Amino acid sequence: MLTFSVLTLFPELLRPFAEEALLGKAQARGLVRVNLHDLRQWSGNRHHKVDDTPYGGGAGMVIRVDVVARALDALRAEAPIDEVVMLTPAGQTFTQASAEAWATQGGHWVILCGRYEGFDARVERLVTREVSIGDFVMMGGEAAAACIMEAVARLVPGVLGDEASHQDDSFSSGLLDYPEYTRPPVWADEGVPDVLQGGNHGAIREWRRSQALARTLDRRPDLLPHAGLMPQDSAELLRLGASAEQLAAWNAPEPPAPKQKRRRKPPV
Amino acid sequence: MLTFSVLTLFPELLRPFAEEALLGKAQARGLVRVNLHDLRQWSGNRHHKVDDTPYGGGAGMVIRVDVVARALDALRAEAPIDEVVMLTPAGQTFTQASAEAWATQGGHWVILCGRYEGFDARVERLVTREVSIGDFVMMGGEAAAACIMEAVARLVPGVLGDEASHQDDSFSSGLLDYPEYTRPPVWADEGVPDVLQGGNHGAIREWRRSQALARTLDRRPDLLPHAGLMPQDSAELLRLGASAEQLAAWNAPEPPAPKQKRRRKPPV
Repeated sequence: MLTFSVLTLFPELLRPFAEEALLGKAQARGLVRVNLHDLRQWSGNRHHKVDDTPYGGGAGMVIRVDVVARALDALRAEAPIDEVVMLTPAGQTFTQASAEAWATQGGHWVILCGRYEGFDARVERLVTREVSIGDFVMMGGEAAAACIMEAVARLVPGVLGDEASHQDDSFSSGLLDYPEYTRPPVWADEGVPDVLQGGNHGAIREWRRSQALARTLDRRPDLLPHAGLMPQDSAELLRLGASAEQLAAWNAPEPPAPKQKRRRKPPV
Repeated sequence: MLTFSVLTLFPELLRPFAEEALLGKAQARGLVRVNLHDLRQWSGNRHHKVDDTPYGGGAGMVIRVDVVARALDALRAEAPIDEVVMLTPAGQTFTQASAEAWATQGGHWVILCGRYEGFDARVERLVTREVSIGDFVMMGGEAAAACIMEAVARLVPGVLGDEASHQDDSFSSGLLDYPEYTRPPVWADEGVPDVLQGGNHGAIREWRRSQALARTLDRRPDLLPHAGLMPQDSAELLRLGASAEQLAAWNAPEPPAPKQKRRRKPPV
């Protein structure tokens, strides 16, 4: 079973995510597991202090490598660990492709959440991955851990009520999602598009694909080279205003993936 | 005062973020304010149902536009609203530059968190911004809201204990952060770099800049064109293995920023 063990100074921040809403329900149904551990348990001192001032000076506090090592040893003594993820703005950017890979791989993932100025640089030797959820800096890794656990867990079969409901996701198709409508059929003079109210499933599918293409072209053309466009998409994109040069570039074979950071094995 | 009003189906998910740890402390000290509102209050029906099936078929449920409109009207009746943010994977990507702009702008920000398949497309007419925190899909917007509130609130003067401690952040300088070390001075045979243990502040500053450049060159060279490199950085990057062509590109004047999505005024 996919298991997340989170090491954090603030386990209470994540308790409702682990126990309520969709992730909590998935856990209650035995589909995923989320363990929250207070890093202070492994402080090794009676003040439960896990951090110290940085060598070389500067503001903020840095989490000690020996504390993290003890915590990982303790978790490893209870159950084998498959991956140790450090959340840091300097890590590899987490994407839907990461979520899919993690969900497929499964196993026991430890997630290290920093606070303050982050971890002692030597913690890198204890982890298999350094991961960032975006180019911004938070107060700590807990909110990022919640994002990642949700993104991965919802891809585990059975977690979403309906198996189909993540196949149309933004990014899964390579495109942004098409717009959705529900009741009321007219609101503030704006009605639901006629095609969605008719019963022509072929026309609905075509309209949705066109809307997804239009939205991606307008907002995120950077996604199109990786979208795996189908022949009929090219005609539609031309109609939507894309140029022949753009289309040629988007349909070109993809260059080799950027150099991935070596995946390191932690010392056992 | 910077105020976030979050509209969500699961206010309890965010309660600890709002009330504990750094964001909670900032709120307790009157530096920021976080209001959590259960969208179901404005369902307009006794079953507190805020969503319905999508027109045109498909899995999942869609949140109704009339419910969101009533919620915004109710919040607006209590206090003027400056921005209404919808969290959606199809939105503009949130970055450190966004965090800085939001913190500088301040005021009253409403954040709409979706669940299920998201919002009725007509909700776009009620919002001033559509924002994504990354190219992945979560179970809902709550974890993303936590990320954003933390990233913005920590830039509000006084929120971080030490004013200096966000000036060295990853991204604030345009580069990834340099590595930090704390006690113990030697761990598993790896010592803290000598320069950090000496007292030469010029040498420490130089070492840290070089480390930040090296890390960015290795992991995120895409950041370098926007990093505002200084003349001495170019020499250091050459030494670190960058090519003269790369340097020329990174030092070229930046092309005009990509077209920004129009900022819309919501109907009042």
